[in-house]
Amino acid sequence: MPELRIALAQVNPTVGDVAGNARIVLSTCLLADKAGADLVVFPEMVLTGYPIEDLALRPSFIEASRSAAERLSTDLVTEGLGGLTVVVGLLDGTRGAAEELGVPRNAPTNSAWVLHAGTVTARYTKHHLPNYGVFDEYRYFVPGNSPVTVDVGGATVAIAICEDLWQEGGPVTWARESDADLLVVINGSPYERAKDDVRLDLCRRRAGEAGCALAYVNMVGGQDELVFDGDSMVVDSEGHLLARAPQFVPYLLVTDISLPQPQLQPHRPVPSARVPGFTEAVIRSEPLIAIGPGTGIPPLSANSEVYAALVTGLRDYVRKNGFSSVILGLSGGIDSALVAAIACDAIGAANVHGVSMPSIYSSEHSLSDAALTAERTGLRLRTVPIASMVDAFQASLHLTGLAEENLQARVRGVTLMGISNSEGQLVLATGNKTELAVGYSTIYGDAVGGFAPIKDLPKMEVWELSRWRNDVARQRGEAEPIPSSSIDKPPSAELRPGQLDTDSLPDYRVLDDLLDDYVELDRGADFLIQAGFDPHLVERVLHMTDAAEYKRRQYPPGTKVSLKAFGRDRRLPITNRWRERRA
Amino acid sequence: MPELRIALAQVNPTVGDVAGNARIVLSTCLLADKAGADLVVFPEMVLTGYPIEDLALRPSFIEASRSAAERLSTDLVTEGLGGLTVVVGLLDGTRGAAEELGVPRNAPTNSAWVLHAGTVTARYTKHHLPNYGVFDEYRYFVPGNSPVTVDVGGATVAIAICEDLWQEGGPVTWARESDADLLVVINGSPYERAKDDVRLDLCRRRAGEAGCALAYVNMVGGQDELVFDGDSMVVDSEGHLLARAPQFVPYLLVTDISLPQPQLQPHRPVPSARVPGFTEAVIRSEPLIAIGPGTGIPPLSANSEVYAALVTGLRDYVRKNGFSSVILGLSGGIDSALVAAIACDAIGAANVHGVSMPSIYSSEHSLSDAALTAERTGLRLRTVPIASMVDAFQASLHLTGLAEENLQARVRGVTLMGISNSEGQLVLATGNKTELAVGYSTIYGDAVGGFAPIKDLPKMEVWELSRWRNDVARQRGEAEPIPSSSIDKPPSAELRPGQLDTDSLPDYRVLDDLLDDYVELDRGADFLIQAGFDPHLVERVLHMTDAAEYKRRQYPPGTKVSLKAFGRDRRLPITNRWRERRA
Repeated sequence: MPELRIALAQVNPTVGDVAGNARIVLSTCLLADKAGADLVVFPEMVLTGYPIEDLALRPSFIEASRSAAERLSTDLVTEGLGGLTVVVGLLDGTRGAAEELGVPRNAPTNSAWVLHAGTVTARYTKHHLPNYGVFDEYRYFVPGNSPVTVDVGGATVAIAICEDLWQEGGPVTWARESDADLLVVINGSPYERAKDDVRLDLCRRRAGEAGCALAYVNMVGGQDELVFDGDSMVVDSEGHLLARAPQFVPYLLVTDISLPQPQLQPHRPVPSARVPGFTEAVIRSEPLIAIGPGTGIPPLSANSEVYAALVTGLRDYVRKNGFSSVILGLSGGIDSALVAAIACDAIGAANVHGVSMPSIYSSEHSLSDAALTAERTGLRLRTVPIASMVDAFQASLHLTGLAEENLQARVRGVTLMGISNSEGQLVLATGNKTELAVGYSTIYGDAVGGFAPIKDLPKMEVWELSRWRNDVARQRGEAEPIPSSSIDKPPSAELRPGQLDTDSLPDYRVLDDLLDDYVELDRGADFLIQAGFDPHLVERVLHMTDAAEYKRRQYPPGTKVSLKAFGRDRRLPITNRWRERRA
Repeated sequence: MPELRIALAQVNPTVGDVAGNARIVLSTCLLADKAGADLVVFPEMVLTGYPIEDLALRPSFIEASRSAAERLSTDLVTEGLGGLTVVVGLLDGTRGAAEELGVPRNAPTNSAWVLHAGTVTARYTKHHLPNYGVFDEYRYFVPGNSPVTVDVGGATVAIAICEDLWQEGGPVTWARESDADLLVVINGSPYERAKDDVRLDLCRRRAGEAGCALAYVNMVGGQDELVFDGDSMVVDSEGHLLARAPQFVPYLLVTDISLPQPQLQPHRPVPSARVPGFTEAVIRSEPLIAIGPGTGIPPLSANSEVYAALVTGLRDYVRKNGFSSVILGLSGGIDSALVAAIACDAIGAANVHGVSMPSIYSSEHSLSDAALTAERTGLRLRTVPIASMVDAFQASLHLTGLAEENLQARVRGVTLMGISNSEGQLVLATGNKTELAVGYSTIYGDAVGGFAPIKDLPKMEVWELSRWRNDVARQRGEAEPIPSSSIDKPPSAELRPGQLDTDSLPDYRVLDDLLDDYVELDRGADFLIQAGFDPHLVERVLHMTDAAEYKRRQYPPGTKVSLKAFGRDRRLPITNRWRERRA
C-alpha cells in the first residue's frame, strides 16, 4: 500500500507582487522537501495574490504570472527540488473562445499548474466560477471544462479550485470518474464568521462524493476588505479529519496518507517541526511559517476567530501598503478603544498613535478614559484641543444644530489627516457597522481614514469583543486594554451637551437585530413586521439605512467578518427611491 | 399590405420608484394612443429603473415590480387603452433553476411583458446577460432561453432585450426563424462617447440578420454614474434608417412601417406633434415629452453630446435625490468654472451657489475670475476667506510642505460641507479625470462632494468643452460663462506661492494621451514605450496612477462619458504591488 506525504502550504501572498510570491513558494518548497514531502500544494492564484480584480484583464499581468510559473519550474530544479511535485495557482490566459463566452479581449483563466522535474506536467482551469457576494469571476475568467489528474508516486491526484468544491458536479464528479486517490482543492476562500464549520462539513461530503481523500489548502492574510483564514485540512474518503491547520497563521501542514484507502497514520517526525504558541501567533506575532501535523491545535472560539480576523486584516493592510504606523482619534468611547487594542495587537503599541481631541462638549471621563487606554496598551497619545479651530470656522459660518456637530467631527478629521500627512501614519476610522448602516457618522469627519478596522462589526459585537479582549488580558495577567468605563457608559458622540446615541437611535440590541435581517438577509418590511419588529421602527430604520448609501460609498475599506459586509458584498444604487413599506 | 404604427417611448424612469415609473408608462400610452399607435414599446426595466444592482436580490422588490406590471395591465383597460399592445421591461422572478445556475436564493430575471386587452399576453426573458464594464448581470439574473413573438394587427413581433442585440445568435436568430415582421429591442444602454454611431451600425446589421424591421428603444436620464442618451430608432430589414429620436430628451417616436417589407412611409400627421427646440431641451429645459417622427433633428456634435451627457447626469442626480440646489468652490480656475456652467445649465443659475475661499496664496485674478463666472452665469457667489481657519490649525499643528497645502484644501472642504449642512445644497466636487488618475487632489479637501460632474473628463477635454460652451453662448448672443483668462492661464492649485500644475505633472497633452492608453485600454509598460512614450514618464505616471487608487475609492460618483470611467468600470485592488515595468 503506497503512502504519500503531502504538504499543504497555507501561505500569505500579496496581490501584484509576483516575484515576492514566487519567492514564498520556493522557500516553502525547501521546507516541505526537508520535511520529506512528495507533493506540495499552494493556494489559488498564489503567484498573483487573490483577488486581483481588473488586473486579470491586463495582458502584461497575465504574461508576468505565466512567466513566474515557468521560472519557478526551473528554479525548483536548480534548488535540488526536481523530485517534488508542486501545485501552484496562477493567472493564466487562453487563446480563442473569448468572444463566444462574452469575455472581452483576451481570455484570462484561474488556473493551477503542476510542476515536476523542471516541466509543467499539467494545467487545470477552474470550472465553477463564483459570481455572487464579493466574487465577480464571470467578469474575469473563462471557465475550464477538462478534468486533470497527475501521478504522484503511484497515486492518482485530481485537482479542483475553490468554487469547484462548493458546486455540485464537475471536478468532484470527475475525481470519482478518474478513480483518483486524492483530490487536492486549492482555495482563496475569504473568512466569514463560522465559515470553518461549513467548510469542514463540505470537505467531508465532497470526499465521499469523490470517493477519495481530499486535501484542502487555503491562503492566509488580508487583502483590502477580505481576510483569508487558512483552515487547511485533509480528510479521508470516509470523511474522517486527518489533519487541520490553525486559522490565520502561515502554516505548512504535513500529512501522510495511505493509498488507495486513506486512513489516519501516525505522523512521522519531520525536521524542525514546531507548533506555534497559537494565541500569541494570532494576536501578537509577526507572520511566521510553522510546520506541523496541525492536529491538536485547539479550534478558535467564536470571539477569538473574529478578533484574529480583524487583527490580520489590519496588519496586512498596513504592511502590504507600505505603512509602518497608524493614527486614530481616541474619544474615550468604546469604538476607538477597541480599534486601538486591535491596532496594538496587529502592529505593536509603539507604532500606534492616539490623538485626544477634546471640544467644549467633551466630558472629563472621555479624556481620562482615552488616557487610560493609552496607558494600558502603551500606545503614543497626544492631545490637540479643537475649540480654537471650531471657533475660527464659526466666526465666518455661524453653524448651528447638526451642522455645528458635523463641524466638530470634521475639524478632528482635518487634524488627524494633517498629522498623518506630516508624519506618515495610516489614519484609522473607528466607526462600527451599526453606525455605518444608519448613517450615524459625519462624512469627512469621524469617517476619515485609509482603513476602518471594525466597519463590519455591529455595536453589540463591539461590546462583546471588547469584554472578550479584556478577559484574555486578565487571563494573561496583563492590563485590560479597554477601560471598563468605556464599556459600561452609555454611548455618546459628545457633539452637544449631554448628547446620547439613544437620542437619535433605537436601543442597539433591537437595532442590530433589525439590521441583521435587513442588511445581511435582504428581508422586506412585511417580513420584518411579521417577525415582530415594531412597524414604525422598521420604516424609520430602513429609511435611515437607505438614505446613508452615499456616505458608505465614500467610507474607507475595512475587514469583512460577516455574511454580508458593506462594500462589494452589497451593491446598491445611491439614487434609489425604493422604500420598504408594509404591503 | 398591412401597416403598423409603432411608438417608441424614450422615457426617463427613476430607480426604485415603481409607482412613479408606472405612471410615466400609463401617461405615455395615453399620448401614443392619441397619436394612433398600435404598439407602444418602453425601455428595459422601465418599471424599476435601471440598473437596480442588488435590489434585484430582494424578494419584496421583485414582487413590487410584478404587481406594478399586473396593475398596469388593468389600468390600461380602465383608461380605454385596451386596444393598444404595450411592451414594458421589468424585474421578474422565476422559480427553480436558480441553484443550478449558481444564482443565490430566488431567481430574478430581466424581462419584458406584453400587455394587451387587460392581460399579459407574453413574457420574454433576456437571453444574453452582460457581465463586463459597468454590468454585473450574471450576479443578478438567470438568463431566458425561449423565443417570444406576439401578433400585433397581423404582424409578427419578436422581442429582445439590450445585450441580446450586441451578441451573436440567440434572439436575433430566433426572430429570423420565426419569420418575424418586426424585432423590438428594449434597452438600458448607457451613453459613451460616440456610441450612437456604433449603435446605428449594429441595428442595421442585426436587422439584416433577423430579416425584418428593427425598433430600438432606449431610456434617457441619469442614474448615479450612468447617463442614458435615448437615441431610439427604427430601421427596415435592409438597414435603412426609418426614424431616429433625439438624444438625451424624453421623446415619443411615432413611425409607420409597412409589412412584411418595411419601407419608409410618409408620416401621417399625429395630434399635437411637436419637435422640441432641441439644443434648448438639452441645455436648458426641464424634462419634457415631445412627440414626433424623429427624423430631421440634426445629430449632436461630439462636444454637444458630451456636454448634454454631463448636464443630464448632474440634473438627474440632483432631482432624483431630492435636492434643489448645488454648491461648489469657485477657485477662478477652469475646472470649477466649467462645473459651474454645467450646473447652471442643468438646474438654473438661481439654484447654483458658488463660494470663493481665498487663502494667502490666492492671486488677484483668481478672485476676479470667480466673480466673472458668477456675474456671467448669474449664480450666487459668496466669499469666505480661509486664512483665520488655517491659522487656527497651524497654531497647534505647524504643518509644512504638502501637509500644509492639503490643510488649505481641507479647510475649504469643511467650509463647503458646513454651508451645505446648514442650507441643504448638494456639494459638487470639481476634479477632472486627469487629476483623479494621478492623485492630484486632496482627499477630504477639494475631493469633498456628493457628485463630481466632470470626473470622467480629462483635462484637455475640460479646455475643449469650455471653449465649445463659450462658442455656443456667443452664437446665442449670450455672455460666455467661462472667463477666457480661466481658459488661457496656466493651471495652478494655488496652495503655495507661484505654484503651477506643471511643477508636479507632465504636460497635460502628453499626460492625457498616456492615461488614455493605460486607464481605458489597459496597456502595459512595454506597449506604451513602444508607442513612443518616454520610459521614465511611463514609469512615473503609472506609479502615480496606481498609488492613487485609495483616493478614487472615496471620491464622489460622477457621470461616465468615456469607454472606461473610474468607478465600477475599472475595479482594481487598493493593496496592489503590481507595477508596470519595462520587461
